[in-house]
Amino acid sequence: MNTRIYNARILTMEEGKPAFFGEVWIEGDTIVYAGPKGKETDIVWDKEIDAKGNLIMPGFKNAHTHTAMTFLRSYADDMKLDEWLNKQVFPNEAKLDGEAVYWFTKLGIMEYLTSGITAAYDMYFFVDDGARSAKDCGFRYTFCDSTNDFGGTAESMEKDYIRLNEDPSRMISHRLGFHAEYTTKKELMEDIAQLAHKYQAPVSVHCSETRKEVEGCRAHSGMTPVAYMDSLGLFNYGGTIFHGVHLDEADYDILKKRGMYVVTNPASNLKLASGIAPINRYLKEGIPVAIGTDGPASNNCLDMFREMFLVTGLQKVVCDDPEAVPAMEVLKMATVNGAHAMGLNECDTLSEGKKADLIMIDLKQPNMQPIQNTEKNLVYAGSKQNVKMTMVAGKVLYQDGEFYLDCPAEEVYEKANSLARKILD
Amino acid sequence: MNTRIYNARILTMEEGKPAFFGEVWIEGDTIVYAGPKGKETDIVWDKEIDAKGNLIMPGFKNAHTHTAMTFLRSYADDMKLDEWLNKQVFPNEAKLDGEAVYWFTKLGIMEYLTSGITAAYDMYFFVDDGARSAKDCGFRYTFCDSTNDFGGTAESMEKDYIRLNEDPSRMISHRLGFHAEYTTKKELMEDIAQLAHKYQAPVSVHCSETRKEVEGCRAHSGMTPVAYMDSLGLFNYGGTIFHGVHLDEADYDILKKRGMYVVTNPASNLKLASGIAPINRYLKEGIPVAIGTDGPASNNCLDMFREMFLVTGLQKVVCDDPEAVPAMEVLKMATVNGAHAMGLNECDTLSEGKKADLIMIDLKQPNMQPIQNTEKNLVYAGSKQNVKMTMVAGKVLYQDGEFYLDCPAEEVYEKANSLARKILD
Repeated sequence: MNTRIYNARILTMEEGKPAFFGEVWIEGDTIVYAGPKGKETDIVWDKEIDAKGNLIMPGFKNAHTHTAMTFLRSYADDMKLDEWLNKQVFPNEAKLDGEAVYWFTKLGIMEYLTSGITAAYDMYFFVDDGARSAKDCGFRYTFCDSTNDFGGTAESMEKDYIRLNEDPSRMISHRLGFHAEYTTKKELMEDIAQLAHKYQAPVSVHCSETRKEVEGCRAHSGMTPVAYMDSLGLFNYGGTIFHGVHLDEADYDILKKRGMYVVTNPASNLKLASGIAPINRYLKEGIPVAIGTDGPASNNCLDMFREMFLVTGLQKVVCDDPEAVPAMEVLKMATVNGAHAMGLNECDTLSEGKKADLIMIDLKQPNMQPIQNTEKNLVYAGSKQNVKMTMVAGKVLYQDGEFYLDCPAEEVYEKANSLARKILD
Repeated sequence: MNTRIYNARILTMEEGKPAFFGEVWIEGDTIVYAGPKGKETDIVWDKEIDAKGNLIMPGFKNAHTHTAMTFLRSYADDMKLDEWLNKQVFPNEAKLDGEAVYWFTKLGIMEYLTSGITAAYDMYFFVDDGARSAKDCGFRYTFCDSTNDFGGTAESMEKDYIRLNEDPSRMISHRLGFHAEYTTKKELMEDIAQLAHKYQAPVSVHCSETRKEVEGCRAHSGMTPVAYMDSLGLFNYGGTIFHGVHLDEADYDILKKRGMYVVTNPASNLKLASGIAPINRYLKEGIPVAIGTDGPASNNCLDMFREMFLVTGLQKVVCDDPEAVPAMEVLKMATVNGAHAMGLNECDTLSEGKKADLIMIDLKQPNMQPIQNTEKNLVYAGSKQNVKMTMVAGKVLYQDGEFYLDCPAEEVYEKANSLARKILD
C-alpha cells in the first residue's frame, strides 16, 4: 500500500524544525518522503489523502499503560489506594483469562486511536493474547515484562523476550522489566539484572510512585528505590522508570549517569493522590521524560491530550512559574521521547526511513481557531475531537470517527461489556 | 418546534435521582416531560430523536469566561502573568471593536457547543455585540458587568442591566458585577453597592485569584478582598466570586453568611500559576461551587470535561485523599450550581417546566465502555468527542460534529482569522 498525503501542514518533530506545508509519501509501512510539494516520483499511489491544510505529525506514544484494565474503568473511583488495589483490582484481575485480555486490550487500542496514539508500552498479563489483539488491530505494541513475586521468573521473561521480539516489522516487541521493587524479592531482581547483563538491555519498572513505596524501600534497604535497584545492577544498561514522583537528590544523578528515561502519568498520579512528578527538574537535569496514561482503572481515560496539558499545567503551578515546561517540550515528550523510552527509535519523528505512524489533527475546529501557534495550541487546547486520522505502519486505523479494524467497533463493545459483567458480577 | 427524544438514558441532575431509561418531551423552549416511555400525549412532534441508549442530561454551564478572547488564543503562552497582561492582552484588547467582538464571541460559542456547554456567564466589553452574537447563534448568554476604573460606571451598568434583561425568554440576561477590587476605586465600588441595594441583586466579581491581589488589598485596606468588598456592602444580596483561590479563614464565614457562590477555573489557575482553589474545603463548608473555563487566552480551550477532571483530580492530590470531591459533586457543579451561580434557575435540571438546554453524550465510544457507572466516567474519562448533540432552548445547535447556526462554521473561522490578523499584526 503506497499512500500520498498532500495539502498538509507537516510537523516532523525533528529537533528545531518548524512546521511547513507539503506532502508525506509512504511506501508500505515506511515514510519515503516528507517535504515540499513538486518533487517528481514514479511511485504508483494506492491512496491519496487531501489533508486540506490540516496538521500531519508523528503519532503519540503512550509510554506506560496497562491496557486491558479497561474492564475496571469507573468501577472503583473516589477510593483509597489500598482499598482500590486489594478489594477491586487484585481479586478481579485474578478472574481474567486470555480471551478477556484479548477483548479488553482491543477496547483500549480503539481508545488510543481516538487520541492519536500509535504505539503503547504495555505492562500486563497474558502477553500472547495482548499481542494477538494488537496484531489483529494493526496497532504497534511494546510489552514491558511485568514479572514479580506473584508471577513470572527470569526464565519466563527471557522466553517472552525472545519470542515477542521475532517480528521483523517491529509491530510487536518486548523489553525487560518487572512490576516494582516492593512486589519483587531481591533474588528475583538479581536474576533480572543478570538477564539485563546477558542482553545488555535496559530494564523498565514502576518506581517512586508513592511516598509509602519510597519509605518502605528505605526501611528495608537503607536506600531509595532508584538507588536500591541501581545497586543490584538493574540499570547498568539504562532503563525507564514509570511515575518517578518522589525522588531524592542523589536519584537524579543515578538517572543521569545511567541515561535513563522517566515516564510521567500525571492524571493517574492526581486521581490516586500519589503526587506531582518533578518534570521541570527533570528537564533542567537533562533527564528525558516521556508520557503515559497509566491503566484505565486509575486514570480513567487513555487520552494523551489530557496528559499533555497536565504535564505542563501542574508544573507551572507547582513551580509558581507560567514559563515552566513550555509546550514544545511537552510535544517532544509525547512523541520522540515516548518512542525512545519504549525502544521504538524507528517511530520517533516523521522523517524519511521512519515508520509511517502518524496522525492528522483537525485544525478546522473552534478550539484550533484562529490558527496561530498551532503547536502550542495542540498542547493547551487540543482534544480527542481534533484527531481526524490515526495511521499505524502506513495503514489508516481510524478516520473521521470510524475505526478500520478486523471487526466492527460494536462487536468489541458487546464483548467487553459481557466479559466485564461476567468478571465483576 | 416540538421535539421528542426517546430510547434515552436520562440523568436529570435532580438531587439524589439516579439515571433511568425513558423519554424527554420538549414544547418550544421548555421541557414538558421527562420520564419512562409509554405515557400518552396529543402533542404533534416536529422532530423525533432516537437517542439509541445514549445519555441525555442538562447542558453544562460555563460560569466564568471572557468569550471574545478567542482572538488571543495561543498568542501568548508560557509567559509571566504581568508580561502576558501588559504586553499581550491589554494593548491588543484596546484595538477591538464591536464587529470583532461579534465574530470572536461566535467562535467561542461554537467551541462551547462542542463541549456540551449550553450557557455562558461572560464578562467582556461591547456587550451589545456579544448579545447579538449569542442571539444569532441561539445560545443562552448571561453577562456579568465588567465595570472598572478603565471603563463603565454605575449608571452605564444600570442601563445595561435594564436593557439586557428585557428578553422574556431569558436567552440574554445581565447581572451586576465589576472586574475586581484591584482595578476599581472605592467610590465606584460604593456606587455599585448602592445599585445592588436598589435592585436587591447579587454582585459578581473576580476575587482572590492570586496571592499578589490578596496582599495588595491587605496593604491598602487591612482586609482580604472578600472582607473588604463585603465591608462596602457589595455582597449584601449575595453574589458570585470568580476564582477564589487564596482565602483566609474568616472569608469562608463571609461567603456562607452571604449565601455566595464560588466559580472555580482550574485550568486557567494552573496555566497562569495562580494556585489551586480549596474546592474540598468549600464543599465541607457548604459553599456552592460552579465551574468556569475562564477566557481562551489564559486556558486556552473552552472545555468543561477538562475542567471537571481538574476540579476533582487536583483536590485529590492536594488533600492527599483519593476520596476528595467525588464525581457526582463535580457534575452538580458543572450543571446545577453553574446555573444558580449565573442566575439561571430555570436551566439547572432536566425537569418539567425547565428550559430545554440539554446534551446527548455518546456512550458508544471506547472511553465510555464498558458501560458501568456512567456518571463517574463522564467526569473521569469524558471528552468533547463524546458530545453527540447540544440543544439550547429546544433547538439543536450542534449534532454529530455539525453546527446548526445562522452561518457556516467556515465563515466564522475566516472572519476570526482575518480580524485576529488585523489586530495582532
